[in-house]
Amino acid sequence: MDCLLASIALESDPLTAMKYITQIDSARAGKLTQLMRTVAQAENCKPEFIRDGIRNGTIVIAANSRHKKRLPFAIGAGLRIKVNTNIGTSPDLISLKTELEKLRVAIRAGTDAVMDLSIGGNVKNIRQHILDECPAALGTVPIYEAVLRCVKKGHDLTKMDPETLFEVIEEQAEQGVDFMTVHCGVTKYSLKVYENTGRLGGVVSRGGAITMLWMRTRNKENPLYEQYDRLLKIARKFDIVLSLGDGLRPGAIYDATDRAQLAELNILGELVTAARKAGVQVIVEGPGHIPLNQVQANVQLEKSICKGAPFYVLGPVVTDIAPGYDHITSSIGGAVAGWAGADFLCYVTPAEHLRLPTVQDVHDGVIAARIAAHAADIARGLPGARERDNKLSRARRKRDWQKQIKLSIDPEKAKTIRDSSHPGAPDQCTMCGDLCALKLSNGSKSKM
Amino acid sequence: MDCLLASIALESDPLTAMKYITQIDSARAGKLTQLMRTVAQAENCKPEFIRDGIRNGTIVIAANSRHKKRLPFAIGAGLRIKVNTNIGTSPDLISLKTELEKLRVAIRAGTDAVMDLSIGGNVKNIRQHILDECPAALGTVPIYEAVLRCVKKGHDLTKMDPETLFEVIEEQAEQGVDFMTVHCGVTKYSLKVYENTGRLGGVVSRGGAITMLWMRTRNKENPLYEQYDRLLKIARKFDIVLSLGDGLRPGAIYDATDRAQLAELNILGELVTAARKAGVQVIVEGPGHIPLNQVQANVQLEKSICKGAPFYVLGPVVTDIAPGYDHITSSIGGAVAGWAGADFLCYVTPAEHLRLPTVQDVHDGVIAARIAAHAADIARGLPGARERDNKLSRARRKRDWQKQIKLSIDPEKAKTIRDSSHPGAPDQCTMCGDLCALKLSNGSKSKM
Repeated sequence: MDCLLASIALESDPLTAMKYITQIDSARAGKLTQLMRTVAQAENCKPEFIRDGIRNGTIVIAANSRHKKRLPFAIGAGLRIKVNTNIGTSPDLISLKTELEKLRVAIRAGTDAVMDLSIGGNVKNIRQHILDECPAALGTVPIYEAVLRCVKKGHDLTKMDPETLFEVIEEQAEQGVDFMTVHCGVTKYSLKVYENTGRLGGVVSRGGAITMLWMRTRNKENPLYEQYDRLLKIARKFDIVLSLGDGLRPGAIYDATDRAQLAELNILGELVTAARKAGVQVIVEGPGHIPLNQVQANVQLEKSICKGAPFYVLGPVVTDIAPGYDHITSSIGGAVAGWAGADFLCYVTPAEHLRLPTVQDVHDGVIAARIAAHAADIARGLPGARERDNKLSRARRKRDWQKQIKLSIDPEKAKTIRDSSHPGAPDQCTMCGDLCALKLSNGSKSKM
Repeated sequence: MDCLLASIALESDPLTAMKYITQIDSARAGKLTQLMRTVAQAENCKPEFIRDGIRNGTIVIAANSRHKKRLPFAIGAGLRIKVNTNIGTSPDLISLKTELEKLRVAIRAGTDAVMDLSIGGNVKNIRQHILDECPAALGTVPIYEAVLRCVKKGHDLTKMDPETLFEVIEEQAEQGVDFMTVHCGVTKYSLKVYENTGRLGGVVSRGGAITMLWMRTRNKENPLYEQYDRLLKIARKFDIVLSLGDGLRPGAIYDATDRAQLAELNILGELVTAARKAGVQVIVEGPGHIPLNQVQANVQLEKSICKGAPFYVLGPVVTDIAPGYDHITSSIGGAVAGWAGADFLCYVTPAEHLRLPTVQDVHDGVIAARIAAHAADIARGLPGARERDNKLSRARRKRDWQKQIKLSIDPEKAKTIRDSSHPGAPDQCTMCGDLCALKLSNGSKSKM
């Protein structure tokens, strides 16, 4: 473990010398970067607040300079809660066109980040197309591509060479990926704890399961853990954000907050410290499936063990019985997680647990996650968060339908629903007709 | 106010003498009724628990013996959180057929109670059709029918005679209605507080707005408050549950937990005490629009002020910006409210704030509310609540799709989504294909 905690000296690379001046370097030197200013403007806060958050590790900016179209965005304490959208092909469904449609729909629906999780087709090419179009921060899980390369050569995935994995990571960073999920916390130790824990739902993380199978078959330590310093060097070189994956996250509420999860979290805490020493921006991923009464504790655990590193929750879904509605189960959990301090919500679509999401699923998932994030922003008292609510409520009281629709989170949907009805008078709706509470209480005499 | 607190003596009515032995009478005499036993069986608890809850006023059974088809159900502390579905015509949309369809869909989707809020057409006849079919507890808001009668005679609604209101209440009880919303807390005092509060959203309760307009125009006290003892006598005679309405509930998160709301709640607390003295079962309605961080406080306030009376929340929606998605905003608020102790969740449909719900809206609203209630039951540690989750998770791990679908909250929806996809192998889904985490981690070698 010494390697992890060793501070990594600043290096110079004659070709990309400037790249070594990272956001953390600048923050630590007390300097404001253009990115910090841009982000601060979007967040309606002072650039110094962003700088200090980056210095403390409570804020990250996910913005790879090679990702040309990106709109820089930050994740962390005191900022608006962000939403991520997973897109990407699967071996069963390979269509660049569809994935690009999903990208566009997600962006239009207001996602802040997109992860391309493609595991079918020419993933590098798909990613390039997505990068070329995507103004949101783009994330990946590099082990997928590493495994696919191995399989393409006709090997079993357990034959994956760790060198390939590091090559992929560097190539993806070079290509412009802004943040990467790395399941460094799946280690011999955490797997031993996992095996002794006794789980109902098993391992549900794709990256976690791949890593586990690879390690078990080869009886080797996780290369992303063993060579974490190497990973940090790449991340530092391109100033990308590492998202420490939760490969052992529970996939059933029965397993929530169990020993395996905590063993991994404890390792992630150590890796956060090492990343900060190395000058690398880092966020931490969290579950998953959590009963509502454990959501707050999960956020507090992460914030405590990982010293305030931004928390990226995958869901959390608060019941397992609602396949077809997991955008709702996760918006319940996501809102409470955000309120408790989570910084970044991964959307969940109605298709979760059932199929690769369609374009419509993607849209519905983004809106549900944005509702959760916004409800949490309000609950946390984020300055300005209530403004749009207040404007819409004012328009509602005045029965100004155009304004209500315009201010809605999904104006198109609100308009469609409204337009499908035929109220008796233009200033009311078909729910109450002339017996509209707002009409009655605003002093207008009812005709009824 | 003396009238309210006066204990109401047991009376006998030669024609319906037996009806005066209410659930509360039996509970206070330490006796178990058949209804208590039936309810206890459904709740998987001892009948004595139901009896003691009724005696203490923390549990009610909404079951009018004149509602022939009803399956008795209870609401309150220690029990499964129940869900209500609002149906009913509006002046703009009068179709008995559609409302009966909504009833059927709501029952199939698992609602526990139905409120017929019809305000268009022959409402008595519509209610009879609903009662004839409805196995769930049926609720109403009698002031609507009282107002409609007045309007039918060609008068303005402010001409409504209080006698008509009491007639309607008695007639509806006689017809078989199990619980009734009565906005007794809209009083001269609470309206004065309302006027001094300064609201963004105004009054959004239909019954509240009608009462306010009536009182303002006639400069009179609310008859349901002034003659509360008369109301209690009717409720007692038919052993129906009074649902003390929150006519001044906030309809914008800006107004949440304001002085007007609290003034009304304080009155409701007094009315709960009076109802208990009179041997009448009572529940209390709550908001509405509440930011997430105030939901728990709202539940605690009600439980404290109303001495543990079951809490029936209408929503609560945690942001105002999501018309078209208020089934989601309210499932977030409802889950947190239930977790904090709310006992009964009124569903909200995607059509809320936009139009009278369609049959599909009703379905989607019920499922969303059931998800919230179930997530809260789990969070509260209701015995047995997690069983279905655990069974589904076990089936998920085994990739037993039939069982997963069967155990889903909406098997038809889960099946439709699953069947629309074409996985490469029958035991996987199109999300991950052969790279399924469950397959990989359960020891099967991936072909990839």
